[in-house]
Amino acid sequence: MIPQQVIEAKRDGLELSSADLEQFLVAYQAEEVAEEQMAAMLMAMYFRGLSPLELATLTDVMLHSGRRLDFTHLPGPCVDKHSTGGVGDKVSLILAPVVAELGAFVPMMSGRALGHTGGTLDKLESMEGFRTRMPLSQFREVVEKVGCAMIGQTPEIAPLDGRLYALRNVTGTVASIPLISASIMSKKLAEGLSGLVLDVKVGEGAFLPDKRDALILAQTMVALGAQRGLPVSALLTAMDRPLGIAVGNGLEVAEALECLRGGGPPELRELTVHLAAEMAAVCGLEADRAVARRRATAALTSGAALQRFARMVEAQGGPRGLDTGAEPCAAAPVCGEAPAERGGVIQRVRPRILGFGLISLGGGRTRRKQAIDPRVGFEILVRPGEAVERGQPLARVHVASNTDLERAREMVREAIVIGSEAPDPPPYPLVLDRVDSSGQGHETSSL
Amino acid sequence: MIPQQVIEAKRDGLELSSADLEQFLVAYQAEEVAEEQMAAMLMAMYFRGLSPLELATLTDVMLHSGRRLDFTHLPGPCVDKHSTGGVGDKVSLILAPVVAELGAFVPMMSGRALGHTGGTLDKLESMEGFRTRMPLSQFREVVEKVGCAMIGQTPEIAPLDGRLYALRNVTGTVASIPLISASIMSKKLAEGLSGLVLDVKVGEGAFLPDKRDALILAQTMVALGAQRGLPVSALLTAMDRPLGIAVGNGLEVAEALECLRGGGPPELRELTVHLAAEMAAVCGLEADRAVARRRATAALTSGAALQRFARMVEAQGGPRGLDTGAEPCAAAPVCGEAPAERGGVIQRVRPRILGFGLISLGGGRTRRKQAIDPRVGFEILVRPGEAVERGQPLARVHVASNTDLERAREMVREAIVIGSEAPDPPPYPLVLDRVDSSGQGHETSSL
Repeated sequence: MIPQQVIEAKRDGLELSSADLEQFLVAYQAEEVAEEQMAAMLMAMYFRGLSPLELATLTDVMLHSGRRLDFTHLPGPCVDKHSTGGVGDKVSLILAPVVAELGAFVPMMSGRALGHTGGTLDKLESMEGFRTRMPLSQFREVVEKVGCAMIGQTPEIAPLDGRLYALRNVTGTVASIPLISASIMSKKLAEGLSGLVLDVKVGEGAFLPDKRDALILAQTMVALGAQRGLPVSALLTAMDRPLGIAVGNGLEVAEALECLRGGGPPELRELTVHLAAEMAAVCGLEADRAVARRRATAALTSGAALQRFARMVEAQGGPRGLDTGAEPCAAAPVCGEAPAERGGVIQRVRPRILGFGLISLGGGRTRRKQAIDPRVGFEILVRPGEAVERGQPLARVHVASNTDLERAREMVREAIVIGSEAPDPPPYPLVLDRVDSSGQGHETSSL
Repeated sequence: MIPQQVIEAKRDGLELSSADLEQFLVAYQAEEVAEEQMAAMLMAMYFRGLSPLELATLTDVMLHSGRRLDFTHLPGPCVDKHSTGGVGDKVSLILAPVVAELGAFVPMMSGRALGHTGGTLDKLESMEGFRTRMPLSQFREVVEKVGCAMIGQTPEIAPLDGRLYALRNVTGTVASIPLISASIMSKKLAEGLSGLVLDVKVGEGAFLPDKRDALILAQTMVALGAQRGLPVSALLTAMDRPLGIAVGNGLEVAEALECLRGGGPPELRELTVHLAAEMAAVCGLEADRAVARRRATAALTSGAALQRFARMVEAQGGPRGLDTGAEPCAAAPVCGEAPAERGGVIQRVRPRILGFGLISLGGGRTRRKQAIDPRVGFEILVRPGEAVERGQPLARVHVASNTDLERAREMVREAIVIGSEAPDPPPYPLVLDRVDSSGQGHETSSL
């Protein structure tokens, strides 16, 4: 195999044979194909897309590049959820203990902040002492004992994906439907799950904002799972606005805890319950989603999920007593409000601006491995379609210094657009669509 | 500047500002942009092309990445020729001394074999002792004393192009009109020339086989030169067949010498004379091309160019006495004929097959810096359109061992296609078109 000939074939729109693509990938793992050759290949794939055969080969080679976990010894199904990434999305923290309450085991492997979006690992680490890295044996122990555990991707799982992901992140080749699909599914297939639910974000705050792209992404991933015996379903959910109120690592943990204590923003609770029911269905625990939703809601209001979350946090080295009122994270030194400069109707709350704003306030990274300030962030107090009066607070900003206060207020003014009439088009419904292994999009009404 | 944002902008078809592209390139030179990021950028440029502004910026940044030579102290114009690469193209060896005879100085900087094509440096080095690397001061001395000299690209000239060229060669991003144009012109603009002639190959044996692509390439390069005050003209010439008879480094040097001794294949002599006249015109030495062609022909038949070539070879450390009958290179151990398997008319003599065949016989490289056997090669005894009888020799093959003899014969049988009627379409005319700074293609008839 001559690497540049394989790159040229892909560049020219020819379909790579399984043998050629596999050889190319294996040679990359062996460092016989250089990073720059793989970067050129990824960009060619970005432009040309992948055929079903190429997609299957890429997924399988990544999947088999590392270990596959096995949870078959556990007395219940194993299920995970993956979100394609958004702003204010703290669902995982609430969802894992809720689904464990429903009777499944939830070995959750999450990621860090990427681009303008937040990452579950960074949120978890805003709790002092919380360990998102641990040996797989210990991860399995926590899952077995508590019913759920949350860690980062380990080098044992799909290491080829780890390398390709890092490469894509610096070479402008992230936003490709087949590359995203193969990356997510190779990792999730290696987790030894009985079922998987995908939360595919739609709207300005998503990596693929367009609904059609999101639908194709969902269908692609669902099919990849089905072909390999893993039941997968996907919900397309709104990311034309942040999810919930809090944007910022510590604030989001606090909001997740509020939700586990029976409160929290209604949309956050509703999406969590929807995803929980979907997870129960997909892993064979409860086919009737209405029943599952009622049980998930009960787990939140009864405090049962809260207790389980507290046990998980303790087991992973985080603060104790979260189920008896302890606060999970430190507060920012400076807090202030950002008032509306005019009266009117909220047109949009733009997640990308808030996401990049959070980074610029120190709550995200501009370089790899940079330390972040978990205390900073925004609480967004208004929603698209709401009427506001001049001077009414649009958001509370939590920042590290007085100098940052005015900058943060400016970000809020840019992110929250006020108009005179109802927003047109109206905001997306919370759940736009559902995709399961029949391969079809199901409109919200059928949920 | 965030490198991946610049890559993404190019990927999405936006025009990069001069500032952004220059920053990206300068950061790459400073190793702050990684090889893999540049590889992704080059592939995005391959797909999206370059705007005139982007092309100008790329060319200028490469040009200014190193030194610019200055030959203004010489008592005559300085002119060079660049070929886009082909099979059997030994023109440079003959052309440099001929044009020096016409009164210009020819500081020629050439390249090595690339892909299926041969390289002037490799040909020169088949003469024992010939030095293609020397300090610029010594290069200038030879040019001044002999009138012509031939070396490889030095690290002082457009070093950024050197890095990008090596990167393109392994990442499937060679065959891009703007990238080729910027690469060639940045180097040639740094040579301090009074004029430049481009030999843009057309046909199966060229990197851009299609005539329209070759025309655009020629027009692009001519315009880049004109905008920077360098008179450039281009001839589009036939590479649907090898040029001349010899294919292989030592054989090609011998054929060049034959031509300098007043003989050689007519097409080779004709193309050399055409290019010499073009060079004389472009550097202001002789505007009347017919006069220049007569003088170039005379330089070949009189032996004047031969003597100058011999002086150059001696000055660069090669064998002495080439003007008095010495042979420049050793012969291959085994030589045999490849007979026609049927009678008929030669349809095609396929240069790519012969070029790759030469590599596989040891006369070219499959890895960088690999040693090559200068003795091996083909002498192609027939031309498209010629009638042949069964058993008539199509070629003589020169190989390293008896084992290779049959392989080489097989290559000839694959490369030389025999049919029953005249080839359709007919072979290209030797010179298809001319492009000068008026930016227009001029049909052959107007030459």
